[in-house]
Amino acid sequence: MANNAGRKYDIIPNMIAKQVIEKKREGKALGSAEIREFVRGFTAGDIPDYQMSALAMAVCCQGMTVRETADLTDAMMRSGVTLEWPAGGAPTADKHSTGGVGDKLSFIIQPLAAACGLRVPSLVGRGLGLTGGTADKLESVPGYNASLTLGEFRETVERVGVAMACQTAEICPADKKLYALRDVTGTVASIPLITASILSKKLAEGAGTLVFDVKCGSGAFMRERGDALALAESLVSGAKAAGRGAAALVTDMDAPLGFAVGNANEIEEAIDVMSRPARGTRHEPLAALGVEFAARMVSLAQGTGLEAARELAWSRLDDGAALAKFLEMVAAQGGDIEAFRRRRASRCVHRWRISAMKSGHVRRIDAAAVALAALELGAGRAKEGDVIDFDAGISLAVGRGERVAVGAELATLETATRQDALESAAGALYRAFEIVPEPCEPPRLVLEEL
Amino acid sequence: MANNAGRKYDIIPNMIAKQVIEKKREGKALGSAEIREFVRGFTAGDIPDYQMSALAMAVCCQGMTVRETADLTDAMMRSGVTLEWPAGGAPTADKHSTGGVGDKLSFIIQPLAAACGLRVPSLVGRGLGLTGGTADKLESVPGYNASLTLGEFRETVERVGVAMACQTAEICPADKKLYALRDVTGTVASIPLITASILSKKLAEGAGTLVFDVKCGSGAFMRERGDALALAESLVSGAKAAGRGAAALVTDMDAPLGFAVGNANEIEEAIDVMSRPARGTRHEPLAALGVEFAARMVSLAQGTGLEAARELAWSRLDDGAALAKFLEMVAAQGGDIEAFRRRRASRCVHRWRISAMKSGHVRRIDAAAVALAALELGAGRAKEGDVIDFDAGISLAVGRGERVAVGAELATLETATRQDALESAAGALYRAFEIVPEPCEPPRLVLEEL
Repeated sequence: MANNAGRKYDIIPNMIAKQVIEKKREGKALGSAEIREFVRGFTAGDIPDYQMSALAMAVCCQGMTVRETADLTDAMMRSGVTLEWPAGGAPTADKHSTGGVGDKLSFIIQPLAAACGLRVPSLVGRGLGLTGGTADKLESVPGYNASLTLGEFRETVERVGVAMACQTAEICPADKKLYALRDVTGTVASIPLITASILSKKLAEGAGTLVFDVKCGSGAFMRERGDALALAESLVSGAKAAGRGAAALVTDMDAPLGFAVGNANEIEEAIDVMSRPARGTRHEPLAALGVEFAARMVSLAQGTGLEAARELAWSRLDDGAALAKFLEMVAAQGGDIEAFRRRRASRCVHRWRISAMKSGHVRRIDAAAVALAALELGAGRAKEGDVIDFDAGISLAVGRGERVAVGAELATLETATRQDALESAAGALYRAFEIVPEPCEPPRLVLEEL
Repeated sequence: MANNAGRKYDIIPNMIAKQVIEKKREGKALGSAEIREFVRGFTAGDIPDYQMSALAMAVCCQGMTVRETADLTDAMMRSGVTLEWPAGGAPTADKHSTGGVGDKLSFIIQPLAAACGLRVPSLVGRGLGLTGGTADKLESVPGYNASLTLGEFRETVERVGVAMACQTAEICPADKKLYALRDVTGTVASIPLITASILSKKLAEGAGTLVFDVKCGSGAFMRERGDALALAESLVSGAKAAGRGAAALVTDMDAPLGFAVGNANEIEEAIDVMSRPARGTRHEPLAALGVEFAARMVSLAQGTGLEAARELAWSRLDDGAALAKFLEMVAAQGGDIEAFRRRRASRCVHRWRISAMKSGHVRRIDAAAVALAALELGAGRAKEGDVIDFDAGISLAVGRGERVAVGAELATLETATRQDALESAAGALYRAFEIVPEPCEPPRLVLEEL
């Protein structure tokens, strides 16, 4: 077709890239070499952003097969350093969550799995938007170093059994570059692209077993159960394609997990859960969920039955071994838990308590609304570079299914830095509660197992 | 969702662009203002290539409504200068072809329409790839200036009734920028995007009537009849949405149009067709097709019946008025037709004649293969910047449906610059012919009318 356009793009080196994009646009499966070369070229800067964003959109619209997704994951993993763990040591395993509100499970599951005899190399992220980052929460402990070198990370895992630190720039540079591009080109919502992004980083950790917590509900990236299930299946099949043991649970994120939403208060709640036998207490649902994940890690990594692994995990949680392992890791990474406790005991914050204006039963506590209120208080980052107020946050006084009388406390908001936002955040938090006359059961936290 | 990615993109000004991309990715119709602002931002450089290519791919995959396509066309048209023609003068009309092999219809239709009393402002393109450009062919006439300013163009149309010159940089800059990007991002194949690209430029000419020749077959951009029909419908409905009279014919491009494929030889053939009554000669199919288009331009622009317009067009073609108008236009744009004739009569070229190796009837002359052979001879541009050999080309000795004996000439190849390519081009050209024992009808050139 005739075309007069002034040609600012160099067509020769990009001819193959263009053919790959067209193939995907037509809904065909790409070959392994095509995917590998595209990712390599993009990472090296030979394939420009405008071609990558076109391919990403074609993938959003046309999808990818399990094999293509595995190839994309592999190519992204190989764009950077991958860790290996010496044979002969304990089996390796990690858990990944797609992110939820009040999600402090990593502080329970990873140490618990280590206390059950696994090596747990856990590279974690920072928060942006509604859901907090594991690294941010850990840094509310004075001295905690979440920015280990890969050498320090490896050494800590070998010595303690578990380490939690941020991904370094050496891990999956292709993912960093692609994620930033997808974020501004409307190409985030794609199961194959999300799978490759999550999985490439997790595979790079080198763990032999990966267990996924795919959150589903108002406070999660995946709001629909079908989408969450599809992502869980994709993650598990991708991990298995890479030769790892894998399992996933789709879990409820319509309400916050546990009672604390923030940073320091989530660390406190996790310590609380691990401090004494949780069965029969209000911490039981959170502890039980942690055990489900840790048991799957142990079962897959050690080849034992799930029921036996579950019993082992409960016993390591109840006897304080998980807490001891968590505290050992915090200390190994420079954290001073006593300084943390002192600072929390004497913290100077502005508080606002909200109370029930009618009696009834708590049917919903909308996770997205709670997260937004916490963000207003300073507990998260609305944009990159925002400084987090570690003491800002929300403590729920009740959980779903509980009965409340008029005037009973529903929650307390705290902030050290955003006093002016307190009243509006309190109003929004109040509206997050749905209180109904009839009794209602607290919903199951595990929606799907695979 | 947590994300550590180093953020090289500025998210604030691109938030709205991202939302527009996501909306289209989800298959929703974009609003008029959203389309207008996206095109404006892209043309101004506020919206980067990587967002535009993502949107273009989303449009490829999800389509656009007739209203969205009209909005996109309008926004692209308004990115540059639009021409207006003083009221009170003759009605204005133009014809556009999607491009075919041996397509010299513009040299017949546009002057013929002018000879029937219309003003014909025709902005044309250069060739790239398989199909030649109208501007290139005209430039085979020594002195012909295809690079008129818009002022010169306007003045020529007013004085002569017809002018044919290249689009200037002032016309539809958004289309130039977008086409170059689509070309390298696998986003060319989209009816709404093709429609907006073609139509924005044609609407900018300001003609009140537009008639489209949508080519279909091996030598055309649209190979499938369904695709060609869809494009024709989209062009007609888009032009009507912009308040113009519009019609389209889907025409056969499985074989070259007429007998000459090249540049100077196509001008010669057009002159030949217009030099004497064509009915009953081997030029009749080409002349009849030209009349169909000119008649539709006249009928729509003047409000007369199609049959009357057809009679008028035949008479203006037969009485030499169309040829006179063509020669008047060539002279007005600086072309020296006598110098052209002298140069052609004494041209120094390498020739190769191919002959039938069996007797039979010509069923196919594959247009794409003929075009490729002509390109090898130097008649076109394989890449931008290539210099065209105006005397290079192919003269077919027979048409589809004709009977040939062993040894009869099928075609002659000529080149002034690529003697080394002659043998291979001749072999390829020979394979373009399909000769079968049984008689076969020459196919109809008009496949669909709308």
